Amino acid sequence: MKTLNEHRAFGGTQRFLEHDAAQIGLPMRFGLFVPPQPRALLVFLAGLTCNEETFAIKAGAQRLAAELGLALLTPDTSPRGAHAPGEADAWDFGVGAGFYLDATQQPWATHWRMESYLVDELIPLVQRDTGLTRIGLFGHSMGGHGALTLALRHPGRFQSLSAFAPIAAPTKGPWGQKAFTGYLGDDRAAWAAHDASELMKGQPRAPYPGGILIDQGLADKFLAQQLHPEAFEAACAAVSQPLTLRFHAGYDHGYYFIATVVDDHLRHHAAQLAG
Amino acid sequence: MKTLNEHRAFGGTQRFLEHDAAQIGLPMRFGLFVPPQPRALLVFLAGLTCNEETFAIKAGAQRLAAELGLALLTPDTSPRGAHAPGEADAWDFGVGAGFYLDATQQPWATHWRMESYLVDELIPLVQRDTGLTRIGLFGHSMGGHGALTLALRHPGRFQSLSAFAPIAAPTKGPWGQKAFTGYLGDDRAAWAAHDASELMKGQPRAPYPGGILIDQGLADKFLAQQLHPEAFEAACAAVSQPLTLRFHAGYDHGYYFIATVVDDHLRHHAAQLAG
Repeated sequence: MKTLNEHRAFGGTQRFLEHDAAQIGLPMRFGLFVPPQPRALLVFLAGLTCNEETFAIKAGAQRLAAELGLALLTPDTSPRGAHAPGEADAWDFGVGAGFYLDATQQPWATHWRMESYLVDELIPLVQRDTGLTRIGLFGHSMGGHGALTLALRHPGRFQSLSAFAPIAAPTKGPWGQKAFTGYLGDDRAAWAAHDASELMKGQPRAPYPGGILIDQGLADKFLAQQLHPEAFEAACAAVSQPLTLRFHAGYDHGYYFIATVVDDHLRHHAAQLAG
Repeated sequence: MKTLNEHRAFGGTQRFLEHDAAQIGLPMRFGLFVPPQPRALLVFLAGLTCNEETFAIKAGAQRLAAELGLALLTPDTSPRGAHAPGEADAWDFGVGAGFYLDATQQPWATHWRMESYLVDELIPLVQRDTGLTRIGLFGHSMGGHGALTLALRHPGRFQSLSAFAPIAAPTKGPWGQKAFTGYLGDDRAAWAAHDASELMKGQPRAPYPGGILIDQGLADKFLAQQLHPEAFEAACAAVSQPLTLRFHAGYDHGYYFIATVVDDHLRHHAAQLAG
């Protein structure tokens, strides 16, 4: 692990690091804020076009995270430097758009292994580094999809869960359909295994009995076509999964919205991660 | 005034606007956060290479500003689009480096009129637009220089004053010397009129009896050569100007430092702007 840069912040340290990621086969970067008295690890998955710095710079989360004792891990959103054909042709596929899954289709299957990278490599690495055992997971947009799906696909790995404007039913919207076709091929059964609403429907019992928190802006231009929180809400209701889904008049899809509600998410996680 | 974009944030609105600036002779951009119940206007002047978005995105100030009823005005740091010869050759002179003064030397004197632009045009415009009469002023690095010098050069215009890592004695450091030579020429008397420490020395009495707040990181790589807070401290002492100058071990020159202490600055201004 190489520290790229390091800044004292709120009595703790905001670092940006790079390591050789075995699951990706390339160097990967991530951000890590460690508060003065860390008690638990909270992983934030970012959206399309973002990187490991976006949340750390724009969300204003470190202030309350320092008070609550939450370390903040902010991974990058895809492999970089793979030189896969067409990887940078679109902002919603390829570089900056890994969708937090392991691709099965070439040329993506070689490096685009974000699920295995996060669950089997980066998060365990940071847990060893920090000594933190309890983990919360949240994310925004594509990263909200990532948070909901990874939390449902890996039972017991995460103790708390929330999302900002998640792609909550990717099989129903253009972003998800494009990504799943490219990374997973045409088999719709494979798609369902990475759709948070489909995954929730298939749960034998409520997987997060402490409740899931989702915030959604009503002036979000992606809401109608891409996000489908109502599908996730219905799936939660069907398996008695407690869900707090809040709609906010006038708020859009960006980080000013996230900054406005992020403290509520940090408190949601801190309460459940306290054990 | 044209609204470039607008985001709901913390119950208020963060906007970025553009207007034809008569004092500059070019269009200028600025940011304006208006909280739900605005009581006073706080103007933030940014540092070298920054623009009207930097503080709005990185400082995390809107949360407490919304609570305290402070509108936040964030001007750009220089004219843009002048096509003056060499304007973009350096990051510490020309574009992004207006130093909050009116240049007297060509080719800069035509457009580089940031002092007149702010004091006679933009701030009055925003005051009319918002109906706010009381104004606080703060800034970072070059913008800390701007805040201290404009507040001292325009008695009675601002009711509160603070700075983060200001260039507090620009005639003593390379950034200030380069900028003053280029914008003002070789006449050292002209320089002194834009040096916060020299200006403070010349005050007949303490101009800000409520006190000035300055925060400075001790791991700031620009501290020894460029900033000289000790010169400003000595000048304040000489005229009995109350100054709270705080040094912070481990903190650098960047926005993670600003974010860490910005709430103290907002409270400092709110207390003085209330009365």
